[in-house]
Amino acid sequence: MEIATDNARISLRNDYSEGAHPRLLQALAVASAEVNRGYGLDVHSARAAALIRDRLGRDADVHFLAGGTQTNLVALAAFLRPHEAVIAPASGHIAMHETGAIEASGHKVLTVATPDGKLSPALIRPCIDAHHGEHMVKPRLVYISNSTEWGTVYSAEELQALGGFCRDHGLLLYVDGARLASALTTDGNDVDLALLAGQADAFYIGGTKNGALLGEALVIVNPVLRTDFRHIIKQRGAMLAKGMVVGAQFEALFEDGLYFVLATHANAMAARLREILQRAGVPLAVDSPSNQVFPVLPDAVVERLRSFVEFETWERRGDGTTVIRLMTSWATPESDIEAFAAVLAHVLAESQDR
Amino acid sequence: MEIATDNARISLRNDYSEGAHPRLLQALAVASAEVNRGYGLDVHSARAAALIRDRLGRDADVHFLAGGTQTNLVALAAFLRPHEAVIAPASGHIAMHETGAIEASGHKVLTVATPDGKLSPALIRPCIDAHHGEHMVKPRLVYISNSTEWGTVYSAEELQALGGFCRDHGLLLYVDGARLASALTTDGNDVDLALLAGQADAFYIGGTKNGALLGEALVIVNPVLRTDFRHIIKQRGAMLAKGMVVGAQFEALFEDGLYFVLATHANAMAARLREILQRAGVPLAVDSPSNQVFPVLPDAVVERLRSFVEFETWERRGDGTTVIRLMTSWATPESDIEAFAAVLAHVLAESQDR
Amino acid sequence: MEIATDNARISLRNDYSEGAHPRLLQALAVASAEVNRGYGLDVHSARAAALIRDRLGRDADVHFLAGGTQTNLVALAAFLRPHEAVIAPASGHIAMHETGAIEASGHKVLTVATPDGKLSPALIRPCIDAHHGEHMVKPRLVYISNSTEWGTVYSAEELQALGGFCRDHGLLLYVDGARLASALTTDGNDVDLALLAGQADAFYIGGTKNGALLGEALVIVNPVLRTDFRHIIKQRGAMLAKGMVVGAQFEALFEDGLYFVLATHANAMAARLREILQRAGVPLAVDSPSNQVFPVLPDAVVERLRSFVEFETWERRGDGTTVIRLMTSWATPESDIEAFAAVLAHVLAESQDR
Amino acid sequence: MEIATDNARISLRNDYSEGAHPRLLQALAVASAEVNRGYGLDVHSARAAALIRDRLGRDADVHFLAGGTQTNLVALAAFLRPHEAVIAPASGHIAMHETGAIEASGHKVLTVATPDGKLSPALIRPCIDAHHGEHMVKPRLVYISNSTEWGTVYSAEELQALGGFCRDHGLLLYVDGARLASALTTDGNDVDLALLAGQADAFYIGGTKNGALLGEALVIVNPVLRTDFRHIIKQRGAMLAKGMVVGAQFEALFEDGLYFVLATHANAMAARLREILQRAGVPLAVDSPSNQVFPVLPDAVVERLRSFVEFETWERRGDGTTVIRLMTSWATPESDIEAFAAVLAHVLAESQDR
Repeated sequence: MEIATDNARISLRNDYSEGAHPRLLQALAVASAEVNRGYGLDVHSARAAALIRDRLGRDADVHFLAGGTQTNLVALAAFLRPHEAVIAPASGHIAMHETGAIEASGHKVLTVATPDGKLSPALIRPCIDAHHGEHMVKPRLVYISNSTEWGTVYSAEELQALGGFCRDHGLLLYVDGARLASALTTDGNDVDLALLAGQADAFYIGGTKNGALLGEALVIVNPVLRTDFRHIIKQRGAMLAKGMVVGAQFEALFEDGLYFVLATHANAMAARLREILQRAGVPLAVDSPSNQVFPVLPDAVVERLRSFVEFETWERRGDGTTVIRLMTSWATPESDIEAFAAVLAHVLAESQDR
Repeated sequence: MEIATDNARISLRNDYSEGAHPRLLQALAVASAEVNRGYGLDVHSARAAALIRDRLGRDADVHFLAGGTQTNLVALAAFLRPHEAVIAPASGHIAMHETGAIEASGHKVLTVATPDGKLSPALIRPCIDAHHGEHMVKPRLVYISNSTEWGTVYSAEELQALGGFCRDHGLLLYVDGARLASALTTDGNDVDLALLAGQADAFYIGGTKNGALLGEALVIVNPVLRTDFRHIIKQRGAMLAKGMVVGAQFEALFEDGLYFVLATHANAMAARLREILQRAGVPLAVDSPSNQVFPVLPDAVVERLRSFVEFETWERRGDGTTVIRLMTSWATPESDIEAFAAVLAHVLAESQDR
Repeated sequence: MEIATDNARISLRNDYSEGAHPRLLQALAVASAEVNRGYGLDVHSARAAALIRDRLGRDADVHFLAGGTQTNLVALAAFLRPHEAVIAPASGHIAMHETGAIEASGHKVLTVATPDGKLSPALIRPCIDAHHGEHMVKPRLVYISNSTEWGTVYSAEELQALGGFCRDHGLLLYVDGARLASALTTDGNDVDLALLAGQADAFYIGGTKNGALLGEALVIVNPVLRTDFRHIIKQRGAMLAKGMVVGAQFEALFEDGLYFVLATHANAMAARLREILQRAGVPLAVDSPSNQVFPVLPDAVVERLRSFVEFETWERRGDGTTVIRLMTSWATPESDIEAFAAVLAHVLAESQDR
Repeated sequence: MEIATDNARISLRNDYSEGAHPRLLQALAVASAEVNRGYGLDVHSARAAALIRDRLGRDADVHFLAGGTQTNLVALAAFLRPHEAVIAPASGHIAMHETGAIEASGHKVLTVATPDGKLSPALIRPCIDAHHGEHMVKPRLVYISNSTEWGTVYSAEELQALGGFCRDHGLLLYVDGARLASALTTDGNDVDLALLAGQADAFYIGGTKNGALLGEALVIVNPVLRTDFRHIIKQRGAMLAKGMVVGAQFEALFEDGLYFVLATHANAMAARLREILQRAGVPLAVDSPSNQVFPVLPDAVVERLRSFVEFETWERRGDGTTVIRLMTSWATPESDIEAFAAVLAHVLAESQDR
């Protein structure tokens, strides 16, 4: 087969294989040439925090950290007493893909099976009802991701329902926003940072997966959770001596909306992928409007596709089909998507010939 | 007074106020434009590790982490069983300035008072002798810094003595190398990475304080300590999704010795500072050959100096004098040192006039 | 209704409501009047350990601890590195009823759903297969209880299969023996302490639930796991100053087989309960040969029964029936069982009248 | 030499070598024959707690735990956030003799050198002043023992000064009362449980070292510290299934003042020891009014004494003399003290003959 992929395979593996957007690199070069205060007390971090706060419509503390697992563990270690537990979807990143980071800080993660990676009051309630008395951990914080590990997103109504439920039941609501940019720029999304800040006690705005070299902005809305938070950052080894490295990048992301522009591109590329798959008659495992797409393909097709495209295998169903994950990013070129279309058509045709 | 400090004060506060050396920024820009494998499995990290290993003369695992406190806590959490303790100088970074990060991972830090921040077999022995039986923690790892928090450095003989003592007593030797570059390039230094790797079970090569935006290279020499180390990195939130951010910088630092060139400059600037102070008759609190200088000055002089120079107050002696810390870096301009000479002469003259 | 329960309700709630067998109290009184070495180094603990070792047919360390949760957490904290996880049945005591004690020591508990509280290689394998690489915890220890929380017991063949599987897969096998006495004395049991010691790396012999005031004997068979274990006991607050309090009781339990006599009685009382239930046509939720019986009764019958009998509600099925747990102990009088028979007949008749 | 020690050596080693006072054993036998609720919710624990509360003159939660190290670690784990540290005397039990139990729960223990094991505002202040900012742990709780590890005791005035200082500085005051009985019954003592409860946020009343088989009563006065405390007890493996084992013993200790009678005897025996030593011209290392006596003796005398008497070596001074610890208990017979007098006279005479 002759497909114009100029040797390199089409990369749809994840959204952190590429580095930073040029404007962020530029901002970093400028800040790097200055003398800045250390440990996140620099002017870039301060300005980036102010830019984020402007979008919240309320007061909040904003801390810049290096990565998602780190942000989750620092936040939860700070927020919980030793016997307090987290409720998370079984597919949640903290439950499956952080090597027990939350447990290493002493807290149990209680998991709830979900159809699509999203939690709701109805899904949480049985977990709460099942925990009572001092022989069991005390559920105290609800962890969700937006978008989720299945690429699904929460509507404003869903977040409000969750927020209300949490407030009614003495639970904190924490949102892992590794891919928040993608969630907030999907077609039909009615959530913004202000709405999120109105429901969540804390959440983070992911940079690593949306155009930064590294960095997440943790927003702590609930005043009770803010006390001595920088102590916890330092104690967990998460305070960068040159905090401006993250601060300057977030400044660039938020000073004129680049953050949302980048995610809009990733989403557009994913929408195009869904279109291509649909036209080819390939079913999707889940209806995900964000930058993750989960086609279900015959095992043989998946193996053949692998020669041309980089992707993650998500779930071997054992019925001759496999769910794979295709992921776009701020840097995915349109030409890659079109090349994928050609490859897919070719591989599907090949498979029908047999 | 008319001193040519062009408004900005002379910065001798620390060695992490400036960003990265331009060649590192350049390397980062190049790597950023590529598609790289995530989580430190990229080609830049691999090549940087190989460059470092080349200098060791022996096999070792090399991991790239974001900062010093993080590296210390990940390493010690991985190396120690729950009841095992660390022996550190009382001035050691893990003892004083890491917000109890080691204790947060469950381990006691036993401290030993030292005259100059350095440990020796003679200083360690009483601590070992005082710990026996199951009612006390078991000293298991000796933590030293090179250079130390007092700017002092270890000779080859001293490191060999420590290494031998540790091996004889079932102790691990771990070297915090936040400022290893400065130590290895001081006048008269007879230690190199190969010698260090022959004595220490693990050590790290500091990047943050020697020209990188962020990053330390942890070298694990002892094979027993290598097992599953990447699990611990991930669990502690220390695995960067875009690991090439640190890898590419270390590649630039080690491909042709830039690492040592940068530190040599910092040391030269510090040597010039010592010369200036000596000529002005200012005593030093400790004889430090590296990039930290600790003059003892009358309290009033210290306060006056602060108008022109940024520095850390190290120790108020209560006898009318104060020890301050002057620190140079790879980026300290010679003109700043000369400006400091003028400022110092001026302030001392002023003080004698009263 | 006139039932001869002399005011007090029939107690079938658990096996720790009564105190110690008189012979243990007597042994305690004798030891109490002596001068004994502290911290478990007394002659009674030594002799009790020797009596237990005699039954193992191999060398092992034996430590006496105060309770089951404590024993589990001390053992697992000592045996596991930070990233290593436990595989347990979802119904396992450490998973549900220890307030996250294992997580508080830093380790994730991976749970596996089981039909009857028992694990098997087939049930464990998918959990192992699902965990690979450094982004996930590393399953390292399999936790089972014998008897289980559902009163079921392992056969020799089942334990050998589990032991073999664990050895083949680099897993440790740990047995929670809170109710080991009951398991080892059920009808048809073909497991003894020697067989258990041949398969498990460590296990504990429960005293609290079989005639002691408090106390469990932890047996560590695997030599690798023995190092510095007393340090961990002390560190977790589990070393009794007057260790003879547990030692003397275990000495009394094991010097002539009282341990097994007591459990045989409890089992006989439970067998009689099962007979009574069967004759009354009451189904059992699970076929448990030990001292726990799980009848399934109409909700109304359960509520009525509560006026006469103390028991635990195990599972509300939502279909009008409820599973309750009836538990016997070494101290359950035969007259209570017969009184239960009368009460049950009465309540069932009453219920049919409506 | 012919000394009437009927073979056994005189035991002055510690106050936990003997078992329980007969009245406690009797209470235990009675409670053991009953059916009691589990997990400390029994009538004996309730009554013991009420008896203790009666002496406080204020509300408090009372929890019964098994030992001193356990009580310290459960309390501190419950009271502190992760970055908060404890200030303790360098001689404090948590600092030296608990195998890093507090660090294992994540908290640093900051130690202060003291002349006699006692803390004061003047000794604490420098430690507080030295800790500021997020790079250091935050001192949050002051740990003292009464009596101390040097047998010294706090006066009412000293406790009030400490309590006031702690309240003024946002510090919690916690009192380790392993030997509180002895402290409260020394000659000249002006502290009682009510005064203690007025100053300390929490403290424990030691049973193990004053006539119980095991057991300490933790009193939590500060309402903020009470929330969910039983969760933490369970999580740390410190909740006894048969909680009445400790409850019934404390009931016996407090129902008519036996607790104080026992300690008064121990103190009287220690006073007699001091008298004997003074008459023999033996200096004491510290002036301790409680049940611990610290004579300074020539090394050779110490070695010779060891043939007749059991005691702990406390400090080898390296000047030819050694400090030993002689300790009395509720069970020390007067005849042992008189035998000690004879032995001492003999050994000293012998030593002068040389």
